[in-house]
Amino acid sequence: MNGKIKVGLMGFGTVGTGVVRLVDSYKEDFFNQTGSVIEVSRILVRNPEKERSVFVNSDIVTTDPRELIYDQEVEVIIEVMGGIEPARTYILEAIEQGKHIVTANKDLMAIHGEELIKKAREHGCDLFYEASVAGGIPIINAIVEGFSSDRITKIMGIVNGTTNYILTKMSHEQASFDEVLQEAQQLGYAEADPTSDVEGLDAARKMAILSSLGFHVGMNLEDVSVRGISKVTLEDIKYGEQLGYTMKLIGIAKKDDELIEVSVEPTFVKNTHPLANVNGVFNAVYVYGEAVGETMFYGPGAGELPTATAVLSDLVTVVKNIKLGVNGRNMATPYNVKKLKREEDIYAKYFIRLIVNDESGVLAQIAKLMAAEEISLEKVLQEPYPSNPKKAELILVTHQASKKCINNVLAAFENVDYIEKVKSCYRVEGGE
Amino acid sequence: MNGKIKVGLMGFGTVGTGVVRLVDSYKEDFFNQTGSVIEVSRILVRNPEKERSVFVNSDIVTTDPRELIYDQEVEVIIEVMGGIEPARTYILEAIEQGKHIVTANKDLMAIHGEELIKKAREHGCDLFYEASVAGGIPIINAIVEGFSSDRITKIMGIVNGTTNYILTKMSHEQASFDEVLQEAQQLGYAEADPTSDVEGLDAARKMAILSSLGFHVGMNLEDVSVRGISKVTLEDIKYGEQLGYTMKLIGIAKKDDELIEVSVEPTFVKNTHPLANVNGVFNAVYVYGEAVGETMFYGPGAGELPTATAVLSDLVTVVKNIKLGVNGRNMATPYNVKKLKREEDIYAKYFIRLIVNDESGVLAQIAKLMAAEEISLEKVLQEPYPSNPKKAELILVTHQASKKCINNVLAAFENVDYIEKVKSCYRVEGGE
Repeated sequence: MNGKIKVGLMGFGTVGTGVVRLVDSYKEDFFNQTGSVIEVSRILVRNPEKERSVFVNSDIVTTDPRELIYDQEVEVIIEVMGGIEPARTYILEAIEQGKHIVTANKDLMAIHGEELIKKAREHGCDLFYEASVAGGIPIINAIVEGFSSDRITKIMGIVNGTTNYILTKMSHEQASFDEVLQEAQQLGYAEADPTSDVEGLDAARKMAILSSLGFHVGMNLEDVSVRGISKVTLEDIKYGEQLGYTMKLIGIAKKDDELIEVSVEPTFVKNTHPLANVNGVFNAVYVYGEAVGETMFYGPGAGELPTATAVLSDLVTVVKNIKLGVNGRNMATPYNVKKLKREEDIYAKYFIRLIVNDESGVLAQIAKLMAAEEISLEKVLQEPYPSNPKKAELILVTHQASKKCINNVLAAFENVDYIEKVKSCYRVEGGE
Repeated sequence: MNGKIKVGLMGFGTVGTGVVRLVDSYKEDFFNQTGSVIEVSRILVRNPEKERSVFVNSDIVTTDPRELIYDQEVEVIIEVMGGIEPARTYILEAIEQGKHIVTANKDLMAIHGEELIKKAREHGCDLFYEASVAGGIPIINAIVEGFSSDRITKIMGIVNGTTNYILTKMSHEQASFDEVLQEAQQLGYAEADPTSDVEGLDAARKMAILSSLGFHVGMNLEDVSVRGISKVTLEDIKYGEQLGYTMKLIGIAKKDDELIEVSVEPTFVKNTHPLANVNGVFNAVYVYGEAVGETMFYGPGAGELPTATAVLSDLVTVVKNIKLGVNGRNMATPYNVKKLKREEDIYAKYFIRLIVNDESGVLAQIAKLMAAEEISLEKVLQEPYPSNPKKAELILVTHQASKKCINNVLAAFENVDYIEKVKSCYRVEGGE
């Protein structure tokens, strides 16, 4: 090694541009930290003709991945193309050529993480992916290094900026989901096809990654129970606010004894909880350790420079490892057996909103149905139903109850004539 | 190395007890992470007869430091005695014997950090001190690793739990400083001699450590401008609240171009800023990176188990480094030249509270004095002065102004007869 580290960059979109920009402006700091000069010596692009907001010599731009993978001088590949294929194939091939990998690809890591890490380990290569979760927050580092001596029991967070922006706007501006989504798309905070964000898939991928690291197990995307925010109404948000809650798309990974639950769903968070005040495109992850108690990490969840920063902090680690000759040895690997909770093992408080007949005895009947499932109530709010004076809105907040019992009671509610409709049901978090 | 790492523990107070407890209960997790069993094989105590809340074999307890320092089998020394001497001498001697050091000693690191790190590096030993700042928050790791590819421009935080507890109580319960301090002492949140916490020295030590790491310079305790909370009155807090501020003891380390300022002082934080909502004994550190923008780290600042966790996460790193054979190479060392700001380079908003004559023209005169120092006003609040109807309380909040100009204008205020008294002056943070 002659003091220069050559890097191949796969993907030249927003994050790729940020990487090139940062490598350039932080050359001196890199050198001070690693003793090496870093050079992006090859960039894989789809369209070499496209205008970029950052200047690079056209000689280094290519559409042929082999020019990176088989370049003997390239020691590290930074993959910021996104998507599963061809990224997965390129990375596997690059590892076989002894390249270290830094990736921001949450889709890939959530689904093929184990395979890729195993391969990297076999070839003595590093594979790091800090940028795949909560761009600007060094949350993977915090979980892997900072909590190395503790047992993490719960990870709870806002890990998708788009949905947090939408829910914040709905709440602050009393606007509907569709209105705010359109606005977010115009501002570039939401994609033209917003499904992955809005339906919770993006958050679920991140929670799969965080729970794998936090609990030392191999979690797959299918292990995460997912529900998006597209059906959240402004009315739900308002009733929640009356009761002291803020609506957030919350990812939860929880371990009780040996049993794990991981979910992403619209959740009412108590206003006194730090997560309730995380607004706009910001992300925040709350990590609960058996010894340390409650901690929270807050920062920008995405964006060109925050994500590029996370990529480059991994790159610094790779380069230090190259100097130390310890690549491929410091990656987190699962050593615990994965046991998932069943619905009867998952306990939470729930917010249930019903339209009921406004007659005497109805509340008593409903309470009886709930008692049959051993669900008790923490709060009840009854309000007139605007469009029909014979009906009423009834909001129930339960004490801790199993998800199975909640589902049972929701099914029972569908079958009684004094309940016109189950409007919504959300998990409640952030209190005792 | 036979798969067992023997550790010598210096100090067996609260944190030491926590370390013994954690080492015991996390044996299995340690093994899974490091491939080694960790054993506390020697404990240095002052009084071997003292009752402890955790059981250890009396054979391993000693009052002679040489039994740890010269024990060939001990590879790592954990120092949780606190204070400068004899901790400094013991650590230097232990390093000479090739021991790796993990310390929670902020006093020592703030004053002799450079000397100790240099010594450790010379002997190929690790020296880590995550537990010295904000116990349960892996903030040193976040700054060193997470921000390795960014340029930190500002670190701002609540790094002392005792004072945050006192200020929170004063504000929430409308109580005086003396009342709350007494209560905190009874609850064990404040020491019998509270000077180090209350006068900001503890926070200053932590800011010296964080700013050294964040800006890659050797900051000393004397470089930190310090002011405690003992003169903060309930009236100040209430007037601040009327203007939308919360009083916090804030540590600030800021770098503009190449110039650095580090201070600890009672500060009004805008209520919309995340730090305003950090209450009780919790700590929070907000780190601003040029690329990443704003991030915040929140958690318990002290306590037996949170601090012990930080000690043990450092121990995990040491043990991994032993396995990798890379000790003594991964510690942060200053590579930038330290240039401190003068008073005329330090810019902030300020809250100034005056008792003035309640006569026409007074505000105009005051504004004129301020204009002479090029200070302009963002907010003005005038309230009747309770005990004298001829006087008025006047609160001024300035736009950004240099500390020098603020000091000049405060001096000028002392010399005019229409101002009876300058009651207080605080820095204001958390807005643009």
